Amino acid sequence: MTTSTINLNDVDIAAIGALAEAITSDPTKADTTWQASVAWDGGFRTTTTIRDFATIATDEPRGLGGTATAPNPVEHLLGALGSCLAIGYAANASVAGIRIDDLRIDIEGDLNLKSFLGLEPGNAGYETIRATVHIESDADDEAVARLHETVVASSPVGHSLNRAVPLTVELA
Amino acid sequence: MTTSTINLNDVDIAAIGALAEAITSDPTKADTTWQASVAWDGGFRTTTTIRDFATIATDEPRGLGGTATAPNPVEHLLGALGSCLAIGYAANASVAGIRIDDLRIDIEGDLNLKSFLGLEPGNAGYETIRATVHIESDADDEAVARLHETVVASSPVGHSLNRAVPLTVELA
Repeated sequence: MTTSTINLNDVDIAAIGALAEAITSDPTKADTTWQASVAWDGGFRTTTTIRDFATIATDEPRGLGGTATAPNPVEHLLGALGSCLAIGYAANASVAGIRIDDLRIDIEGDLNLKSFLGLEPGNAGYETIRATVHIESDADDEAVARLHETVVASSPVGHSLNRAVPLTVELA
Repeated sequence: MTTSTINLNDVDIAAIGALAEAITSDPTKADTTWQASVAWDGGFRTTTTIRDFATIATDEPRGLGGTATAPNPVEHLLGALGSCLAIGYAANASVAGIRIDDLRIDIEGDLNLKSFLGLEPGNAGYETIRATVHIESDADDEAVARLHETVVASSPVGHSLNRAVPLTVELA
């Protein structure tokens, strides 16, 4: 492994540049597969394992039949979106030479429980999701607006939500 | 708060029944809003806060310019799907009188990095997501197949992925 070059916003632009170059030479390198494994712990409690990182707990609030020991799946989903957007900001700001002084993203989503509870068929998922980006930077408004556009146009979790992803769920 | 009734699979069916009844009397009670807040920590590291639970860390692998201290957003997304499906199994199995002895769900998804890296416009999100459900139960195959169908038809995270969710991302 070569020594990494730490750049603006503490982002390792050299590593990203090397990956982009490798993909330009061999486009199959852009095809990635990601994984997670979830074990049921009884009730509505689950444990998610991703690579060899600390596991992630999930539960439901008491009003939904859970024991309120951890966030629920639809909250984790919003967290995934927020972290994806934040990483997109950090990456694209660094490429554009914009220093980020502070960045926080608040996300909320509206969901009707009727389908999940079996009261009627239909959309059990989010009806809408809203993200609000609080960014502090010395870049001018136009540069930040361009950065924002680039981030929204290239967010892996954002696109996984605002486009329909073919999903197969099968019994082993 | 009344004493909860713990049932089959350690699922508090009484709480879910009470919520379903409350919604039947007053349908506006089905409308829920969920939230998360993500703070950027420098580089590709972020911290997600959901209610007052322990925070959740996110980072990218070194090959993608990160420092590999935590799962990345698209992995967290798969974890959210797996936990949602597992909770759906636990809930619907309990309603159907099916005892679950063991349940594990493996999820994987294919994603092309070109759009995220800015090499070409297009879909930055998952192209496909596959979940494989490993369930141990003394229920017969037909009952498990019916359970499976019900879960897939009513999964909040599943529907948020396989349907297009209107998403707005705005600068504060």
